[in-house]
Amino acid sequence: MTKHLFAAFLLASAAPSLAQPAPTQVAQLRDDALKDNYAWDIVEGLTTEVGPRMAGTEAEARAREWAVKKLKAMGFANVRIEPFDMPVWTRGAEGAEVLTPFPQRMVITALGNSASTPPEGITGEIVGFNSMAEFEAAPADEVRGRIVFVSHAMPRTQDGSGYGFFGGPRRQGPTVASKKGAIAIVVRSIGTDYHRNPHAGVQTFADGVKPIPAGALSIPDAEQLQRILKRGQPVTMHLTLVSQVTQGKSGNVIAEVPGRDPKAPFILVGGHLDSWDQGTGAIDDGSGVAITTAAAKRIMDAGRPLRTIRIVWFGAEEVGLFGGIDYQKKHGTELHYAIAESDFGADRIWKVDSKLGKDREAEAKALQIALAPLGIVPGSLEKADGSDIEPLLNAGLPGVGLSQDGTHYFDIHHTPDDTLDKIDPEALRQNVAAWTAMLGVLSGGIEPEPKRAKRR
Amino acid sequence: MTKHLFAAFLLASAAPSLAQPAPTQVAQLRDDALKDNYAWDIVEGLTTEVGPRMAGTEAEARAREWAVKKLKAMGFANVRIEPFDMPVWTRGAEGAEVLTPFPQRMVITALGNSASTPPEGITGEIVGFNSMAEFEAAPADEVRGRIVFVSHAMPRTQDGSGYGFFGGPRRQGPTVASKKGAIAIVVRSIGTDYHRNPHAGVQTFADGVKPIPAGALSIPDAEQLQRILKRGQPVTMHLTLVSQVTQGKSGNVIAEVPGRDPKAPFILVGGHLDSWDQGTGAIDDGSGVAITTAAAKRIMDAGRPLRTIRIVWFGAEEVGLFGGIDYQKKHGTELHYAIAESDFGADRIWKVDSKLGKDREAEAKALQIALAPLGIVPGSLEKADGSDIEPLLNAGLPGVGLSQDGTHYFDIHHTPDDTLDKIDPEALRQNVAAWTAMLGVLSGGIEPEPKRAKRR
Repeated sequence: MTKHLFAAFLLASAAPSLAQPAPTQVAQLRDDALKDNYAWDIVEGLTTEVGPRMAGTEAEARAREWAVKKLKAMGFANVRIEPFDMPVWTRGAEGAEVLTPFPQRMVITALGNSASTPPEGITGEIVGFNSMAEFEAAPADEVRGRIVFVSHAMPRTQDGSGYGFFGGPRRQGPTVASKKGAIAIVVRSIGTDYHRNPHAGVQTFADGVKPIPAGALSIPDAEQLQRILKRGQPVTMHLTLVSQVTQGKSGNVIAEVPGRDPKAPFILVGGHLDSWDQGTGAIDDGSGVAITTAAAKRIMDAGRPLRTIRIVWFGAEEVGLFGGIDYQKKHGTELHYAIAESDFGADRIWKVDSKLGKDREAEAKALQIALAPLGIVPGSLEKADGSDIEPLLNAGLPGVGLSQDGTHYFDIHHTPDDTLDKIDPEALRQNVAAWTAMLGVLSGGIEPEPKRAKRR
Repeated sequence: MTKHLFAAFLLASAAPSLAQPAPTQVAQLRDDALKDNYAWDIVEGLTTEVGPRMAGTEAEARAREWAVKKLKAMGFANVRIEPFDMPVWTRGAEGAEVLTPFPQRMVITALGNSASTPPEGITGEIVGFNSMAEFEAAPADEVRGRIVFVSHAMPRTQDGSGYGFFGGPRRQGPTVASKKGAIAIVVRSIGTDYHRNPHAGVQTFADGVKPIPAGALSIPDAEQLQRILKRGQPVTMHLTLVSQVTQGKSGNVIAEVPGRDPKAPFILVGGHLDSWDQGTGAIDDGSGVAITTAAAKRIMDAGRPLRTIRIVWFGAEEVGLFGGIDYQKKHGTELHYAIAESDFGADRIWKVDSKLGKDREAEAKALQIALAPLGIVPGSLEKADGSDIEPLLNAGLPGVGLSQDGTHYFDIHHTPDDTLDKIDPEALRQNVAAWTAMLGVLSGGIEPEPKRAKRR
């Protein structure tokens, strides 16, 4: 492995036409970043001074103001908000209670775009399914007029790959339930923890499907409901899931580190500013904006990169990628040299993927080599991901993916438990070091400001 | 150590006057109990079919009915409820919200016997203290007319000894706050976790002190409030802690394994039936009644002990030991051979203490030897504990203490998170094995029922 990587290193070093910075410069930037405090300062400030910041609400507007002030204070250029309109779904009173045969309250939260129950709630008999497949196979007769409960068996994975498949009950469940005539649906939270904190998350009813109330039970409550159902007696539940939809505003916050060559294609990095409403959005995605902004700041501190670095704190990601879509609409045709987003928590980065194109393989390999000392394994050269940048990646833009270890991510994801204490400052610094090294490799080289310039 | 214990073993074996059973019989009972399913069956049933069972409520009454039915079905004798009257404090709507400088909701729960706020809540400026000592030292001028916030630094300990000292803000804080003229008090939850689940718990205002609203913030919220206070701006909070007090009923549920000698002093084992209202009381104290009852059942299955074993599922422990006090009043003068309670969760037992008296040291040592193969270390010979049995222990009754490992107990204690999934079935079995062995040693010997008796 070492031999192979060293050969790649030589190859990367022998490609001056790509204007790559000296590996020693990148190594120095990377290692200095292991003492970073910028990222902690950002995520601590944002989660403390703003707290929860649900897309389209006045809290998200306060978060944008906070971001502008912070990014300006850090010395970034062209700090601005790009606003856009959006429908805003917000939660009201909510609760679930088993009425028979064993009366008890359960902890529930409405899924995004859930229809609202009346304030006094609804009552129905529960029909339970142990998986999405079982539910989909059920005849409508079993479901009609009832409250559907769908469970699943989501496992922990390092790469978070369980989220797609096992997210079915949340994403498709409500539509399937409505089509089969259910009066409401409750799902086992899409998560891997055992706390009484339900996992929120967006779902969208398919076109023409009548919205019904849809909620997620905490995992201990979902297992309790399964145990109750197993007793074989009819189970009735009272369900209150009040919500409302209004028209509102969100926006992307953009800032830049100006490059020496303003015409050169620029690098886009970022995360999303909005959070779900019950936590303070520390790992989703305060840490993402913090890590990427700290890395850009460290490049700026070191001097001027050849390429401009653009930082985007996307708005309204959680409820439908509104910020990413708006950015694509406004900037999709600009020359992006590479795009990358951090939106998978703040645990250590363990893998680097990239999709820079065949002609930039040497650069991709140089990136792998620069990250390896941080314990990051080389992944695919034909892959990159990121929620808000997905539209751009799908359009073929070059991208990089720095994958955090997601083993514990879905313990916290979209719950009230997404708070600052869940971030390990040392892991956060490893993230900053990786992003700084990545920016260093792609920057085209950083030229220290002349000394006299600092005295002006 | 081995040599010392072996000597003790010989000594114990050489004391036939104490009517000790053969060590081989105890060893067999103990090892068979490592395959126990009775305890799981009880705690699974109670937490599922009753769920939360707050002292004095109709849920606790349902729990008593459930208990009677279960204990009868298991074959115990003299199953009965001993009712008593008590004041019943119950919680209504509750919530906390920082209004300035950084508006955000926090997760709070009222402490037992908290005064009620009006339904619309109260608003006040926060004055914060980092410890009970700091708060006690503060002049009343700093506190008067404000909402007090008291934090602490409770550590994890195996023996749970942090609960006493660091529980001060909850137990004494409200009284001190009221005396200094505070309009309300919020404390950092007395716990060791980092989840948005506040820890409830009882507190009692000292005589003549005016009750004020008193609540516990979840630990992430308490740390957030500390960060907000550190910014140095005035912090105002809106607090809703609605509660009510009525007069109600609770009761102890009692059952027995009749001994061959009805005149011999009997053994009392048990736990408490009531739970806090937000969890299902799995580790506090469903596991306690389950473990002790399963052990008694295993003795009954093996034959007839010399001494009667009395099982008590105490009522209304959480809110002031009402069940323990009522039991003492009704039975305190009866001849108890030994008393023991399980009320510290369901993690593995790591230590045995006892206080059987000088003349029964051989029996105490035999107990240590019988438990050692379960990985249980010998503790004190002059100590026993247990919440409901405290009045009896204080009155000088002989007792045994089987200490569970409490390292993780205060992650869950008194929170919504106290649910069945927190119990490890294997650790539960180790508990049953220890209690079975203890009962075996103290039983005076178990005589198998004649075979024909089983055919009747």
